[in-house]
Amino acid sequence: MRMYDIIKKKRDGGELTTEEIGFFIRGVTDGSIPDYQISALCMAIYFQGMTVRETCDLTYAVRDSGEKLNFSAIRGIRVDKHSTGGVGDKTSLVVAPIVASYGVKVAKMSGRGLGHTGGTVDKLEAIPGFATTLSDEAFVRQVNEIGLAIVGQSRQFAPADKKLYALRDVTATVDSMPLIASSIMGKKLAADDDCIVLDVKTGSGSFMKSTEESKALARLMVDIGKGAGKKTVALITNMDRPLGYAIGNSLEVIEAVETLKGRGPEDFTEVCLTLAAYMLSLADMGTPEEAKALARKAIENGSALRKFMETVAAQGGDASCIADTEKFAKAQYSYPVLCPVSGYILRADAEQYGLSSLALGAGRNKVEDAIDYSAGILLKKKTGDFVEKGEPVAYLFSNDPSRFENAAQILLSATTFGPTMPEDEPLIYDIIA
Amino acid sequence: MRMYDIIKKKRDGGELTTEEIGFFIRGVTDGSIPDYQISALCMAIYFQGMTVRETCDLTYAVRDSGEKLNFSAIRGIRVDKHSTGGVGDKTSLVVAPIVASYGVKVAKMSGRGLGHTGGTVDKLEAIPGFATTLSDEAFVRQVNEIGLAIVGQSRQFAPADKKLYALRDVTATVDSMPLIASSIMGKKLAADDDCIVLDVKTGSGSFMKSTEESKALARLMVDIGKGAGKKTVALITNMDRPLGYAIGNSLEVIEAVETLKGRGPEDFTEVCLTLAAYMLSLADMGTPEEAKALARKAIENGSALRKFMETVAAQGGDASCIADTEKFAKAQYSYPVLCPVSGYILRADAEQYGLSSLALGAGRNKVEDAIDYSAGILLKKKTGDFVEKGEPVAYLFSNDPSRFENAAQILLSATTFGPTMPEDEPLIYDIIA
Repeated sequence: MRMYDIIKKKRDGGELTTEEIGFFIRGVTDGSIPDYQISALCMAIYFQGMTVRETCDLTYAVRDSGEKLNFSAIRGIRVDKHSTGGVGDKTSLVVAPIVASYGVKVAKMSGRGLGHTGGTVDKLEAIPGFATTLSDEAFVRQVNEIGLAIVGQSRQFAPADKKLYALRDVTATVDSMPLIASSIMGKKLAADDDCIVLDVKTGSGSFMKSTEESKALARLMVDIGKGAGKKTVALITNMDRPLGYAIGNSLEVIEAVETLKGRGPEDFTEVCLTLAAYMLSLADMGTPEEAKALARKAIENGSALRKFMETVAAQGGDASCIADTEKFAKAQYSYPVLCPVSGYILRADAEQYGLSSLALGAGRNKVEDAIDYSAGILLKKKTGDFVEKGEPVAYLFSNDPSRFENAAQILLSATTFGPTMPEDEPLIYDIIA
Repeated sequence: MRMYDIIKKKRDGGELTTEEIGFFIRGVTDGSIPDYQISALCMAIYFQGMTVRETCDLTYAVRDSGEKLNFSAIRGIRVDKHSTGGVGDKTSLVVAPIVASYGVKVAKMSGRGLGHTGGTVDKLEAIPGFATTLSDEAFVRQVNEIGLAIVGQSRQFAPADKKLYALRDVTATVDSMPLIASSIMGKKLAADDDCIVLDVKTGSGSFMKSTEESKALARLMVDIGKGAGKKTVALITNMDRPLGYAIGNSLEVIEAVETLKGRGPEDFTEVCLTLAAYMLSLADMGTPEEAKALARKAIENGSALRKFMETVAAQGGDASCIADTEKFAKAQYSYPVLCPVSGYILRADAEQYGLSSLALGAGRNKVEDAIDYSAGILLKKKTGDFVEKGEPVAYLFSNDPSRFENAAQILLSATTFGPTMPEDEPLIYDIIA
């Protein structure tokens, strides 16, 4: 088998065999295929696409390229949720405790933020003392004892994906449906869950800018998950606007805690309840409707909040911060972004809001960048709200006041105003089962 | 400027600016752009194409990536002919002496053969003593004195092309019109000619398998040549069948000499006269029709043959071999390829005939392979001829008789027979001026 023939076959619109895809991923993993052939194939895939069968084969080859987890020591049904990444997306902090409060096991490995999107691990590290690294033994023990543990991905899962992604990132071949799907699912399937709920974000703040593309990606990932023997469901959720009012690590933890206390923003609460409902439903806790009522109840009766505090304490975090969020370290400086006109907010571009938060120090441009946990944005007004000229649209927070002007500029440029209230967009576009 | 943005722009169907193309070729030449980005861009160009303007810019950047020749010391009009490469294509050996016999200067740099196509330099080296390397001074002096010199490309012309071609060759991005055109013309324009006649081969034995593709490539190369201030014309000629009856180095020299003596095959003679006519016409020797009469006259009165012998002698070759071609070294063994059926030859696939000759030792699989100058094929029957079962279709020649069986097999598999005479195909499909 020659890599040249595989590139030419795909270039000419052919369907690669399981053996050809296996040869390719083995060569990526062991370094025997040179980078220039890998990038040429990725570009050919960008143009010619892949069938569902090819994409499944690619995903499973990526999954099998490195270490895989074995959760057999965990008792009970293991459910995970994966978000394709957005702005202000702190759902894991809310849905994992809801689900775990019903005895369903959540053994969660999360990522760090990069670019305009945040990461769950960074958010948790905003809680004083919270350890995002646990030994395998401690991880399994915690999941068995309290039903929930959340750690960073310290392992080298799916090394082929790491290599592929690094090349795609510098050769303009990231935006390819089969490559995105196999990258996300290849890593996800290396963990040993029984059920997966995918939160596929759609709109400016996400990978997929159109609802149609998001649905196609969701369909593909659900097929891949099912093909690997996992119960899989995907929700297509709105990421044209930030989710909730808080962007930035400690600000988002506080908003998540407020939501667990039943005082969260309406849009964010609704997305959390729906995600939790599908996770519970996949874990045999009734229909999605019945499971949603359970999720709501776990907030109302405080069991989800208690589960979160239990988890924070188990991982060395200061649970008193959760009881009283005033204890979180505050940014030294704040800055109001004043509305330049009167009118309705027609659009608040989520990606740009994420970049504004990044400019405040809340995120990373490069993986090695340090983070200012208290930096970020608290929105005062969102799409559809009326704002008077001179009224604050948002407050910015940072320990470096020289960052405010640029961040405010990015945020205001991404916000458009008009005389009439815009039509309401759906929060959840579709469920792909 | 970032290579990433250039790849993405082309991927999305954008038109690259002159500056972007210059940045790319400088980066290829100095090694600052990594191979994986170069191959990704080549694949994007394969799918999205390039405008004529982009292709011209690419060609001129490739031309300017290295040394360029200066022929200002040569007196008179300098004309060159370039063939895109075929099987049995020994036209340079005939047209260059015809043109030079009228005082038009031919300062020719030729290539070596690779794969199924032969190269002029290899053919000339089949003449005992012929030196294909001359100092710049000797080269210019010879062109000034006798009007003609033919040497190998010893210089590093267009180094960006060498790098690009090596990468395209292993990433399935050779078959791209703008990349082919800029590769051929980038090297061609590094020589300092006034006029260029392009012989664009079409059919199985050439790069371009369809006449429409060949015309498009010819149009593009003529536009590139004119854009660089050269008078440029292209002929689209048939390479679905081999040209003439001889394939292999000394066999082809002998056929060319026979043609200069007025005894050449009809198809080969016609192509030579037409090419010479356009070369003379571009050099202000009348209309193509008038110039064709001149070309014919140069064969009839022996002046073209004398010019060839003069050239051979000037470059150290044994001109008595030209006077009496029996003096050429013969292959030790010959082998008749017998026709398995009676019928008309419907098709004789030129590429496969070239590969058969390669299998006899007449060509190279890799640039460092040695050549058997006397090896090759003499066709007895060509497309449209009737053959009786058991009659020889061709004779194979080699110094290694173990090669015959395989070569005969390749040749016969590439020849199809039928009960009725096939329609005649044009020899020259079009002239692009």
